[in-house]
Amino acid sequence: MKITKTVKRILDNYESDNPGTKANLARILMAGRLGGTGKMVILPVDQGFEHGPARSFAVNAPAYDPHYHFQLAIDAGLNAYAAPLGMIEAGADTFAGAIPTILKVNSSNSWASGANQALTGSVDDALRLGCSAIGFTIYPGSDDCFELMEEIKEMSAEAKSVGIATVIWSYPRGGKLPKSGELALDVGAYAAHMAALLGAHIIKVKLPSDHVEQEDAKKSYAGTDWSKQSDRVAHVVKACFNGRRLVVFSGGAAKGSDAVYQDARDIRDGGGNGSIIGRNSFQRPRAEALELLDKIVRIYLNKE
Amino acid sequence: MKITKTVKRILDNYESDNPGTKANLARILMAGRLGGTGKMVILPVDQGFEHGPARSFAVNAPAYDPHYHFQLAIDAGLNAYAAPLGMIEAGADTFAGAIPTILKVNSSNSWASGANQALTGSVDDALRLGCSAIGFTIYPGSDDCFELMEEIKEMSAEAKSVGIATVIWSYPRGGKLPKSGELALDVGAYAAHMAALLGAHIIKVKLPSDHVEQEDAKKSYAGTDWSKQSDRVAHVVKACFNGRRLVVFSGGAAKGSDAVYQDARDIRDGGGNGSIIGRNSFQRPRAEALELLDKIVRIYLNKE
Amino acid sequence: MKITKTVKRILDNYESDNPGTKANLARILMAGRLGGTGKMVILPVDQGFEHGPARSFAVNAPAYDPHYHFQLAIDAGLNAYAAPLGMIEAGADTFAGAIPTILKVNSSNSWASGANQALTGSVDDALRLGCSAIGFTIYPGSDDCFELMEEIKEMSAEAKSVGIATVIWSYPRGGKLPKSGELALDVGAYAAHMAALLGAHIIKVKLPSDHVEQEDAKKSYAGTDWSKQSDRVAHVVKACFNGRRLVVFSGGAAKGSDAVYQDARDIRDGGGNGSIIGRNSFQRPRAEALELLDKIVRIYLNKE
Amino acid sequence: MKITKTVKRILDNYESDNPGTKANLARILMAGRLGGTGKMVILPVDQGFEHGPARSFAVNAPAYDPHYHFQLAIDAGLNAYAAPLGMIEAGADTFAGAIPTILKVNSSNSWASGANQALTGSVDDALRLGCSAIGFTIYPGSDDCFELMEEIKEMSAEAKSVGIATVIWSYPRGGKLPKSGELALDVGAYAAHMAALLGAHIIKVKLPSDHVEQEDAKKSYAGTDWSKQSDRVAHVVKACFNGRRLVVFSGGAAKGSDAVYQDARDIRDGGGNGSIIGRNSFQRPRAEALELLDKIVRIYLNKE
Amino acid sequence: MKITKTVKRILDNYESDNPGTKANLARILMAGRLGGTGKMVILPVDQGFEHGPARSFAVNAPAYDPHYHFQLAIDAGLNAYAAPLGMIEAGADTFAGAIPTILKVNSSNSWASGANQALTGSVDDALRLGCSAIGFTIYPGSDDCFELMEEIKEMSAEAKSVGIATVIWSYPRGGKLPKSGELALDVGAYAAHMAALLGAHIIKVKLPSDHVEQEDAKKSYAGTDWSKQSDRVAHVVKACFNGRRLVVFSGGAAKGSDAVYQDARDIRDGGGNGSIIGRNSFQRPRAEALELLDKIVRIYLNKE
Repeated sequence: MKITKTVKRILDNYESDNPGTKANLARILMAGRLGGTGKMVILPVDQGFEHGPARSFAVNAPAYDPHYHFQLAIDAGLNAYAAPLGMIEAGADTFAGAIPTILKVNSSNSWASGANQALTGSVDDALRLGCSAIGFTIYPGSDDCFELMEEIKEMSAEAKSVGIATVIWSYPRGGKLPKSGELALDVGAYAAHMAALLGAHIIKVKLPSDHVEQEDAKKSYAGTDWSKQSDRVAHVVKACFNGRRLVVFSGGAAKGSDAVYQDARDIRDGGGNGSIIGRNSFQRPRAEALELLDKIVRIYLNKE
Repeated sequence: MKITKTVKRILDNYESDNPGTKANLARILMAGRLGGTGKMVILPVDQGFEHGPARSFAVNAPAYDPHYHFQLAIDAGLNAYAAPLGMIEAGADTFAGAIPTILKVNSSNSWASGANQALTGSVDDALRLGCSAIGFTIYPGSDDCFELMEEIKEMSAEAKSVGIATVIWSYPRGGKLPKSGELALDVGAYAAHMAALLGAHIIKVKLPSDHVEQEDAKKSYAGTDWSKQSDRVAHVVKACFNGRRLVVFSGGAAKGSDAVYQDARDIRDGGGNGSIIGRNSFQRPRAEALELLDKIVRIYLNKE
Repeated sequence: MKITKTVKRILDNYESDNPGTKANLARILMAGRLGGTGKMVILPVDQGFEHGPARSFAVNAPAYDPHYHFQLAIDAGLNAYAAPLGMIEAGADTFAGAIPTILKVNSSNSWASGANQALTGSVDDALRLGCSAIGFTIYPGSDDCFELMEEIKEMSAEAKSVGIATVIWSYPRGGKLPKSGELALDVGAYAAHMAALLGAHIIKVKLPSDHVEQEDAKKSYAGTDWSKQSDRVAHVVKACFNGRRLVVFSGGAAKGSDAVYQDARDIRDGGGNGSIIGRNSFQRPRAEALELLDKIVRIYLNKE
Repeated sequence: MKITKTVKRILDNYESDNPGTKANLARILMAGRLGGTGKMVILPVDQGFEHGPARSFAVNAPAYDPHYHFQLAIDAGLNAYAAPLGMIEAGADTFAGAIPTILKVNSSNSWASGANQALTGSVDDALRLGCSAIGFTIYPGSDDCFELMEEIKEMSAEAKSVGIATVIWSYPRGGKLPKSGELALDVGAYAAHMAALLGAHIIKVKLPSDHVEQEDAKKSYAGTDWSKQSDRVAHVVKACFNGRRLVVFSGGAAKGSDAVYQDARDIRDGGGNGSIIGRNSFQRPRAEALELLDKIVRIYLNKE
Repeated sequence: MKITKTVKRILDNYESDNPGTKANLARILMAGRLGGTGKMVILPVDQGFEHGPARSFAVNAPAYDPHYHFQLAIDAGLNAYAAPLGMIEAGADTFAGAIPTILKVNSSNSWASGANQALTGSVDDALRLGCSAIGFTIYPGSDDCFELMEEIKEMSAEAKSVGIATVIWSYPRGGKLPKSGELALDVGAYAAHMAALLGAHIIKVKLPSDHVEQEDAKKSYAGTDWSKQSDRVAHVVKACFNGRRLVVFSGGAAKGSDAVYQDARDIRDGGGNGSIIGRNSFQRPRAEALELLDKIVRIYLNKE
């Protein structure tokens, strides 16, 4: 695998990491149709934990099978596939080496009260299953956020020592943060920045709105026009160490294809590193999903 | 022991497991009269912890003796015997190698407040007692469910590393989940799915009713007729990674023999992997219990 | 030391234990005047922790000295002496090998709120002090019972691995259990059974009354006459794996000698394995205590 | 260093301890002008943590310097100097070997709510700083007392294994214990006894009043005249395993010299092992402090 | 690097530390334009965690880039640069050896309730990133202060064993302490003293006001004129073991340059060891920041 200059330049930003961790970042960045471009599209399938199997897969029954998702990600030429322990275990051998995997090591569910998650995987699991990275959710704003931060501090340090990369899902939620502020621009940039401060290699956040939530932050955002989504993306990228850290954006609930494409264009134009698309892909029939993913990949290739 | 093709195909689904763990799964699947068929009947005796000795055994006094249950499971030609630490310790040597055992490593009791269990056994105990698996209860819905999940995450990882299989009892209970929803179809399938995501090799759930409890899930179940129990079993099997994980169903409170037989037929017809029958066997006189178990075994052999 | 057949038969019931643990059980069962009979009388002195020194020892001032109790147990020909860390440390060398000792590893005190105990000793302490067993109190019914169970699970496993036996004091108390139910027959048998399930080698419970406390258990006790104390003892013995585990009964608060003798006879006649007698011995003048203990020993020797 | 017969007899009481721990006890008992007599005067300086620097040292400004206290203890011919981590670190090298030190390993402060302390030192710290003992406070009566007990259980066991002695400050406080009962005779004797049971080598308590606090204990104290302080000291000594454990008494708040001398005489006459005097020494000008300590030492030498 | 006599004298105060730790203290004290003078100016950049990226960096956009701060500290000739994990990781290799770094190992954020911080770095991180010290915040007064103290106890001991120095940020806050008392003279001196007792090598506190908050402390401050800031600095220095520990003062919120200069003069004149200046430097344009830092350095060099 010949690392492109673009990817090499990205890897150079991870200057404190050992070659093992850089190699796993490189595996993700060089995989699939976007390999070498510095852009990524990742398939995450943790909906079963979050919403249950029927809500996640009944609409597209083949998706009940863990192999379906490995194959979808491979066939669509994506950069990586992210899922909880059981889902990865069920296909790790069949698809060994075929696509980089990200082990989601904490998970919530429909009955959870409070904004927290249970640890459901470990760095040792990632190693034995051949994963390139662990994925971990923090909820900035939550009363349990210190606990989540301390968990990822431990796990990320362990991961770095054995050459596994860390992806942090940073989703503002809970505590004194109102529902209306979860997608605010200031809140999203802050969430992304905290993930960077915690040592994440790849940061996953939601696309922010143009609302500014925190009273104390309003002054810092005043006087700038935040109506363009790509500008908001650029602001989040800046909050990730001025672009020294990879940041990908999630698509949220299933929605129309056109909205998904526009999101991808805005991420691209704002300098974001790509999309992480779950429900919008595996909840469509396979052919449609492949078509949608193809178009997204082409957007990141500047062909759409 | 010559592994049948059926069992080999099942073992292949556990593609990330080491040969030690697969060997123990094979021991369970190849034991007894159902050995090699991919079907199982398991005897669990944790009622003493849950309800106390008199409520469990007074009706059939020989059952006060731990050896009684080992012998019953062996004589009935079952696949495995599951019990808490003390019960296994009291017969592990006498019956060493005679029947696969499952060490139940957490337990509740009549005075417990909240839906949680105490850890009462360990993987090291399972190893020194020659057990093939550990058994662990989670209560999806419970306020303590994250704690339970993190406990089984630790224990299951340890078990897998030393070749011990993991059986998860997944019983929705507690928290925001009303009593009326504990047996709901959506809730049961979700509980089974979470056990699979947590890395269970064998999943034990209750037979679900045709009620759908969660508002958000109703759409996914609408338009299908769920009145046949075997269809509901098939749905739970689907929720267990489309059949890539073994799932057995518990019989619940002691009831009439005919109801027990009908349950077994529905499990079989729905593609479930078998029954786990406690009170319905050891609370009958031994001769009756053997007769009942014989008939259940014959159902799974497609002879009834 | 030639192990008697009776003791050998008892040891055979501990079929999963290593020779080290069996040897320590044998030491207790072969010590003193009841050595070899399968019966035991044990001296426990944890009253200082529970009630303070003056309430415990002022009535018989020589008992302030830890050596007093070692000597009393030895001179009375008892099977073992049980006490907390400091008490054992203060005489362990002087009386090394003279009598088996049981290190009480958790303790409560007069100011404790809630039914719980502090860990005050360890298996390592037991080893360095030459103890044959650890002693641990659980409070079935207590809100903290899961915590207590998890503590003894850890300690008992560690003890078994290094050849130390486990004695569980199982005293129903706290939580939803009313004071009036603490001595109930069903509750006591359940408490004894839980100690057995937790892997205790010797179970210590209180002599139960003929009251049945739990609504759900009444059916199981109906139709039998429980007015004879020896029958109630026999029921508790049954609850201890049908007699496969040693069970001794405590005498409770200081009371008249005749009541103490009657208790011993009932324990003997019901198949119990002996008495654990604290305040009723060390709170009398030494001569009287020796006389009382002599008579109790003779009862277990079937000479009274 | 030739150990006197008196000290040898005291060391013999610590019969379960290893030679390393006995050597450190001997160092304390053989140091200073009381060396070899079995009596001790110890200088504790933990007031900075408890009350802050100005309240502790402003009245005698040289005492802001940690070296001041080492030198004061040495020049006064005391047995040991006790202080928290930072204070010991700041002089441990300069005064290495010049006087035995006791590392106070837990500490409270003026803002602490509840009767508890933070762990602020460790056995490893004691070893690297050349200390002879660790000092630890428990608050019998406190809601957190189990936690404190479990902490000292761990630390004391570790200390004993590496030859470090344990001093327990046992100060009744908190929970259901009223302020008025903190100095009660029964409460103080109970507190001293618990420290002994927890395995302390040296027990530090306050001089008790003649009040009896606990309803249940009144009977045990009735009929004896407790008006003489030396009798109360003798009772506490009895509660410390009938004198098998060293017990020293603290002087409390700064007060007149005559009261301090009378206390020392009563401790001596009641068979106590000495005084631990903080504020009453370092809050006076150095010359006065030396004079006061000289007189106290002479009292213990039976010269006053 | 030739250590100056001034620095050697300071290092001698750390008499219990190993050569590794002293070497790292020396690196900080010998770095930059103040190298060898015993004075320090440190750049801390943890505002991103505390207030979010936009509030911290929008006013001076180049500061979004972690390299900006390393370079600013180097170009200004400062003694050290302090920041959380991600910020250090992002420049540790580029600037290896160019300036001593302090890894801030705990952090709060805008949504945190209560006065506590999450652990976000470790001693192992400090080692792998080539840091000279760890930085840790305690909140004296906080309900969580015991927990914070126990965390730094563990981390500081680990750091000392591997030659890493410890800097404690001691900021009174929370619990029973009113907002109005956070900057009080008695409270600030107490906070500094506790940091010293906890074993800090360098203590960071805020410049105190002349208010005395604690009722019990008023007597100790009465009769002295505390209106001069340099006298208050001298009092804090006294509270840090009479000057045996290094103490630096923070500048607080961004304010006018003249106020910053006056603070530095007062710190210098009171015998404090320097300034730690964050927002007042990186929130100005680089040229202005360098000018301000130049003047502060000159003040400590007694040239202003």
